[in-house]
Amino acid sequence: MRCRRCRDEAVIEIRRNNTAYCKGCFLEVFRNQVVRAIDTWEMVGPRDRILVAVSGGKDSLALWDVLLAQGLQADGLYLGLGIGDYSDRSHQVTAAFAAERGATLVTVDLAATYGFDIPTAGRKGSRSTCAVCGLSKRYVFNAAAADGGYDVVATGHNLDDEAATLLGNTLRWNTDYIARQSPVLPAADGMVKKVKPLHRLSELETAAYAFLRGIDYVVEECPLVEGNTQLRYKEAMNAIEARSPGTKSQFFFGFLDRAMPLFTPEDRAEIVACQACGRSTTGMFCAFCRARAQILGERLAPPEDRQVREELADEVLPVELFEHAGGPAT
Amino acid sequence: MRCRRCRDEAVIEIRRNNTAYCKGCFLEVFRNQVVRAIDTWEMVGPRDRILVAVSGGKDSLALWDVLLAQGLQADGLYLGLGIGDYSDRSHQVTAAFAAERGATLVTVDLAATYGFDIPTAGRKGSRSTCAVCGLSKRYVFNAAAADGGYDVVATGHNLDDEAATLLGNTLRWNTDYIARQSPVLPAADGMVKKVKPLHRLSELETAAYAFLRGIDYVVEECPLVEGNTQLRYKEAMNAIEARSPGTKSQFFFGFLDRAMPLFTPEDRAEIVACQACGRSTTGMFCAFCRARAQILGERLAPPEDRQVREELADEVLPVELFEHAGGPAT
Repeated sequence: MRCRRCRDEAVIEIRRNNTAYCKGCFLEVFRNQVVRAIDTWEMVGPRDRILVAVSGGKDSLALWDVLLAQGLQADGLYLGLGIGDYSDRSHQVTAAFAAERGATLVTVDLAATYGFDIPTAGRKGSRSTCAVCGLSKRYVFNAAAADGGYDVVATGHNLDDEAATLLGNTLRWNTDYIARQSPVLPAADGMVKKVKPLHRLSELETAAYAFLRGIDYVVEECPLVEGNTQLRYKEAMNAIEARSPGTKSQFFFGFLDRAMPLFTPEDRAEIVACQACGRSTTGMFCAFCRARAQILGERLAPPEDRQVREELADEVLPVELFEHAGGPAT
Repeated sequence: MRCRRCRDEAVIEIRRNNTAYCKGCFLEVFRNQVVRAIDTWEMVGPRDRILVAVSGGKDSLALWDVLLAQGLQADGLYLGLGIGDYSDRSHQVTAAFAAERGATLVTVDLAATYGFDIPTAGRKGSRSTCAVCGLSKRYVFNAAAADGGYDVVATGHNLDDEAATLLGNTLRWNTDYIARQSPVLPAADGMVKKVKPLHRLSELETAAYAFLRGIDYVVEECPLVEGNTQLRYKEAMNAIEARSPGTKSQFFFGFLDRAMPLFTPEDRAEIVACQACGRSTTGMFCAFCRARAQILGERLAPPEDRQVREELADEVLPVELFEHAGGPAT
């Protein structure tokens, strides 16, 4: 197989495009796709300070690598989830990546800052482990970016991630989530802008990029992910893709072109400050603070306040609210 | 396992509803679902003459059985596709079904009436075998119903069929097809009304109904169906359904409830009479007549007519048009 651009020996074949590239051309094409995503969706301005959420996996490190190579102001954010060896190794890998490049890595430890880790949250909370992990990431990424004065949070979601999420949202026709599945979520009401510059690139391509760039990354999946529904949607998409290459990109790009404009996000209730943490929410307390209180067995407000008790009843079991009534308020 | 309704021993378990039924209750529940579909979507009026497209498979015979049991005026239509033993057996089975019930079976033989069978069409035409078969069925069902004075054509499409078709249309975001994926297509411009009264029932349920009613049906798949994309979508849906029972019905009913109204069918060009067969079309000749001419190596109009030549150029290879220029016009 020969490189489509320079006719040198190819090192990677991309079936959905029926094409192949040598190392040099692939790295350039990969970066061009990221630049194209950034430009098309006006993801970052030339003076923007970017905070890249880095897990230690191939996608987020490949993203950080490209953003730095483009000369953008991109710091990394590592969130320690407390998932044993997996988290330790992820932290080492991201710290080494930053040190090699003289880049800044911001580290937040969930347990040290918020009092719980993800394995505990999965056991004690009412949400699944993956759900509480996702909620925590969204909260901490936004909080760290807002507090650090960053203009935009960039995540390493690739085409496979986006196609699987879209499949899940579409199988449920969750029209509100579908409407919001854009590669860019603009800043609004105390929420920092979020962007996904890798959404044009498949998992295979991000893995190849990381490998060819010699990036040391954590290859293992999170050990808590087993049975995750997102994985099932990926498997279903992969089964179809294997027999009809191009289905995944057709699905996601066709959505962006033709379908996303048909879906309208639900009107949000008025945005107010969470009475516990002060960040944006639509209720009295934000979802993260409610989940955290449940996990820690704490209460968010004096039990005398009947309105609060009723509002919390959906999220926190009454027994938890009242058992700790004598304890210290958060 | 006990029947959910009468507590007798159950003979069928329906996982997506987490329920089970004895024979008598299942047959009643099945028929109720068909009646509910007919009522909700105003599929047939009490005096309507229905033409049921029967292939000899479980779905269409189960449908015909239920419609007759409801006392509706339902004749069968068997279209002979000329697929060897498979078609012969299908014809025998539908004829025997009709004879047992004293019902009327209308038979159309594709080769005798239109000059080609499906295996020939698959070899000679530019469409895939399944595509030309689908086109032929739609054309003949409509023509037979219109000529026979029927008010509505009913087909045996079940929930699995509809979910797989919706998945295929959604993976391509074919917004026009998505907009038209209703259980009812109203009569319009010479097109007879089309209804799918089994869309609430899964393939497992139609098979169980046919089995429990002692209906002799053709179990084998069409021998030409291998590699059909619809089958891949069914496999993908089944893989997800196996781990998340209810996904299929959630997907299709969620679509009907919340998403179908968001999609608008494209405006059709003006409907005119096909210059070959006289039936409704938007061009000079309808898709069926163009496909047929291509398969038979015939031409649809004198080659002197430049406008026609240009219009046909997309569908019929010029060589075919001109090679037969001296032959008889269709």
